[in-house]
Amino acid sequence: MGVTIIGIGSYIPCGVATNEEFGNHNFFNEDGSKFGYENDVIIEKFKAITGIAERRYIKDDLTTSDIASLAAQKAIDDAKIDKEELDYIIVAHNYGDVKHGAVQSDTVPSIASRVKHILKIKNPYCVAYDMLFGCPGWVESMIQANAFIKSGIAKKCLVIGAEALSRVVDQHDRDSMIYSDGAGAAVVEHKEGSSGILAHKSATFTYDEAHFIYFGESNNQELTDARRYIKMYGRKIYEFALNNVPSAMKDCLDSSGIAITEVKKIFIHQANEKMDEAIMKRFYKLYGVEAPEGVMPMTIDKLGNSSVATVPTLYDLVVKGKLENQEVNEGDIVLFASVGAGMNINAIVYRV
Amino acid sequence: MGVTIIGIGSYIPCGVATNEEFGNHNFFNEDGSKFGYENDVIIEKFKAITGIAERRYIKDDLTTSDIASLAAQKAIDDAKIDKEELDYIIVAHNYGDVKHGAVQSDTVPSIASRVKHILKIKNPYCVAYDMLFGCPGWVESMIQANAFIKSGIAKKCLVIGAEALSRVVDQHDRDSMIYSDGAGAAVVEHKEGSSGILAHKSATFTYDEAHFIYFGESNNQELTDARRYIKMYGRKIYEFALNNVPSAMKDCLDSSGIAITEVKKIFIHQANEKMDEAIMKRFYKLYGVEAPEGVMPMTIDKLGNSSVATVPTLYDLVVKGKLENQEVNEGDIVLFASVGAGMNINAIVYRV
Repeated sequence: MGVTIIGIGSYIPCGVATNEEFGNHNFFNEDGSKFGYENDVIIEKFKAITGIAERRYIKDDLTTSDIASLAAQKAIDDAKIDKEELDYIIVAHNYGDVKHGAVQSDTVPSIASRVKHILKIKNPYCVAYDMLFGCPGWVESMIQANAFIKSGIAKKCLVIGAEALSRVVDQHDRDSMIYSDGAGAAVVEHKEGSSGILAHKSATFTYDEAHFIYFGESNNQELTDARRYIKMYGRKIYEFALNNVPSAMKDCLDSSGIAITEVKKIFIHQANEKMDEAIMKRFYKLYGVEAPEGVMPMTIDKLGNSSVATVPTLYDLVVKGKLENQEVNEGDIVLFASVGAGMNINAIVYRV
Repeated sequence: MGVTIIGIGSYIPCGVATNEEFGNHNFFNEDGSKFGYENDVIIEKFKAITGIAERRYIKDDLTTSDIASLAAQKAIDDAKIDKEELDYIIVAHNYGDVKHGAVQSDTVPSIASRVKHILKIKNPYCVAYDMLFGCPGWVESMIQANAFIKSGIAKKCLVIGAEALSRVVDQHDRDSMIYSDGAGAAVVEHKEGSSGILAHKSATFTYDEAHFIYFGESNNQELTDARRYIKMYGRKIYEFALNNVPSAMKDCLDSSGIAITEVKKIFIHQANEKMDEAIMKRFYKLYGVEAPEGVMPMTIDKLGNSSVATVPTLYDLVVKGKLENQEVNEGDIVLFASVGAGMNINAIVYRV
């Protein structure tokens, strides 16, 4: 019936950075002023709001394209296909390869070309390209793969989300504690039967929102270099997400004809636990019901926000039974949803 | 019948840099050695091979997203549509926004989000994303728009190619004389009738070729910073292109069922005049015929290689009658073709 995930994989970096490791950072507000309280208070508040206790960083000798390849290989193995059968390699990211200690992003050749090279895929008709769409990039790449398969130009696509945000964080910005590294990948193809993508919805808000997440200078105004880092207006994003994500998810679900009571799991991008909980509450409220216990698997406490990698990593963990008290089974209806830089929002209704 | 260009526009930067302006550059070979001859000889040889006499650079206060927006506005005006009708804004580029004097690429938010913001488009369901595919990015984005329209998820797409290579060139590298800035854009939609995209072909070669075009350090080994620039192995690319582009173009044309004698114009990416002439000669030789006079409109002498902007700019100039002795008319069969970083190759058979 639809375009189905036939293999899934993820790469979770082994480097664990706990909140305590930020204890000696010099944090400043966006205007360069010092916070009115000590780091242990900052970190405690941060933990209470975001739910993040740890995040993962890649090793110094790795880049985004390396971890993208590691996740991709797992997805290919999981799909039990010949890698030469792939028609597309789509890599969602936002910063390309930033080597340890470097300030420049490297996107030439594309990360997708690098992945294809690392995987030693020879078939020239496996088309490799990169997709930039903020954190919702992996979900959007799934929607693109779906379109390619439906329009008849592809049969099998490898869809990867990979990011190493540790390479673009401002250590003087409290928000740096949010960001994490990771990679997730799926192999999709058209399958007979009832599984697959049933509906999808995407939106880009730019009139007022384009620069809610941006590339800006350090909060430490004593630093005089022009180096820029990932930056965000957290409160604006929170309000934006709450006002727009639940309705986008509802539009998507309603267009699939599936009832809210049929939804087994919601795999949502994780940047802030409180925000995700509020989104979920509001989403179910739109249907006049309460969110069921455990409907939203969470990994943010240990994995932070790994951008485009968050959703596929989360799905991989649940599918493989690696997340306590979480599972999906054949026939289950699940939602993928994301919000991030752009500002972009998207959702997919998917039958496992 | 097909997905048709209903509006086209381009932005050609007003800054003209002639070959003479490179006369006082300190050029080095890739290994850091000096050339065995003077700059005037280097420049003369360069001109003889590439055909480039001038290139265009954007003003200091502009970035890629600015010129992308300028070209986009022209395409929208040309299409005589309401900008709010657009379902997609796809921007092909490779380096994002690099501000004058900056070393970092800025891709968050995406260039497509910035364009949408600059154009003041409000419709949130106009999905804006960036596509990285080397110089063939605009042609590939046209193929993606075609897939979206065919699969039913879009009606009208704005497809932009924009790049400011002047921001990433190594002034100590002779190849820096090749690169130029520019932007081109098309509005496409499904139209009844015989016009539109008839066939397309894409390929990504990475096994040996992934790093033929790359991001590398300056040829001036006295520079000790780690700053990197656009770099290429020109001879390898030349051989690669000659061995693969003509056959890819033939595959594409043959799959459309159109005879070679029907092809009126070939709009090919321009990085090197001699290379393009050799490709054309070999392409026609595959059919046992000679390339007709004037089949390949050229702008490289004045515009250099503006990456993703080259093909749409060229098409815009010919459609608008701005290129001497060149025209296209309704019903004409034309080919779009490109080769570049990745290494990627693609082609489209299109009926005007």
